[in-house]
Amino acid sequence: MSEAFQDAYPDELAHCYGCGRENASGLQLKSFWDDEETVARYSPRPEHTAMPGYVYGGLIASLVDCHGTGSAAAAGYRAHGREQGSEPALRYVTASLQVDYVAPTPMGVELELRGRIEEVGERKVVVAQSVTADGTEVARGRVVAVLMPDAMVAK
Amino acid sequence: MSEAFQDAYPDELAHCYGCGRENASGLQLKSFWDDEETVARYSPRPEHTAMPGYVYGGLIASLVDCHGTGSAAAAGYRAHGREQGSEPALRYVTASLQVDYVAPTPMGVELELRGRIEEVGERKVVVAQSVTADGTEVARGRVVAVLMPDAMVAK
Repeated sequence: MSEAFQDAYPDELAHCYGCGRENASGLQLKSFWDDEETVARYSPRPEHTAMPGYVYGGLIASLVDCHGTGSAAAAGYRAHGREQGSEPALRYVTASLQVDYVAPTPMGVELELRGRIEEVGERKVVVAQSVTADGTEVARGRVVAVLMPDAMVAK
Repeated sequence: MSEAFQDAYPDELAHCYGCGRENASGLQLKSFWDDEETVARYSPRPEHTAMPGYVYGGLIASLVDCHGTGSAAAAGYRAHGREQGSEPALRYVTASLQVDYVAPTPMGVELELRGRIEEVGERKVVVAQSVTADGTEVARGRVVAVLMPDAMVAK
């Protein structure tokens, strides 16, 4: 299997709670290409409840966020004909996040996020997403990601 | 100080990862009235990083989500002239969540969320929010909350 988008982030930019391999307490979401779509899978932890039996919407928003910025990085590299992870790093942050919850999300099921690249600009990438649980769509998301400002890089 | 909106949720609906008092691993966000606005404060944990030094956007989305549904419940009780927490419980879930990130959010600062009730309908409440860190607005949010479907109540 190819390397996850997030595993190609440089070490100093791999501490994200949602997807950083350097964040031991975090969710460690991993996203991959599947043809023209991007895909990530995540099994919510028992504490990630909304009402008992259902998954917390804030967790879903977090997954959409990280699958969005990860997909943006992958799309940026692809659009520039560059190898994933090559320097200077293409690392994106979220400018805008939209999630529509279309059905209650049952606990105990692996969630799948599928991303479609809607737009790749010089600094901006837009990623539309569908989140499914056991084949049922439970949420739709949209992330506007922008290249990380230089000021955010720790000195 | 008055009781937090979330502390008035019935026990069986108080397991939310973002704001349930029965969720020991969760964020336990608490929201209150401040005149016509609603307010909540939260200090991110050390692991809630995006890039080192900055707060994870998915955490902010989670706080906006729970402050939104909490504010919706409070607004619902107020609109119906009912005492907070009185039965049958007014418990809302998120139909739609929008967050615009307007500035990087520094770690080590308590965040404040302020909600403004934009609309209170029979089943739907819309809450606009502003998130600040040390007086600087870092995000704007909007939650469309709807009364929880009966099917979500654990039998």
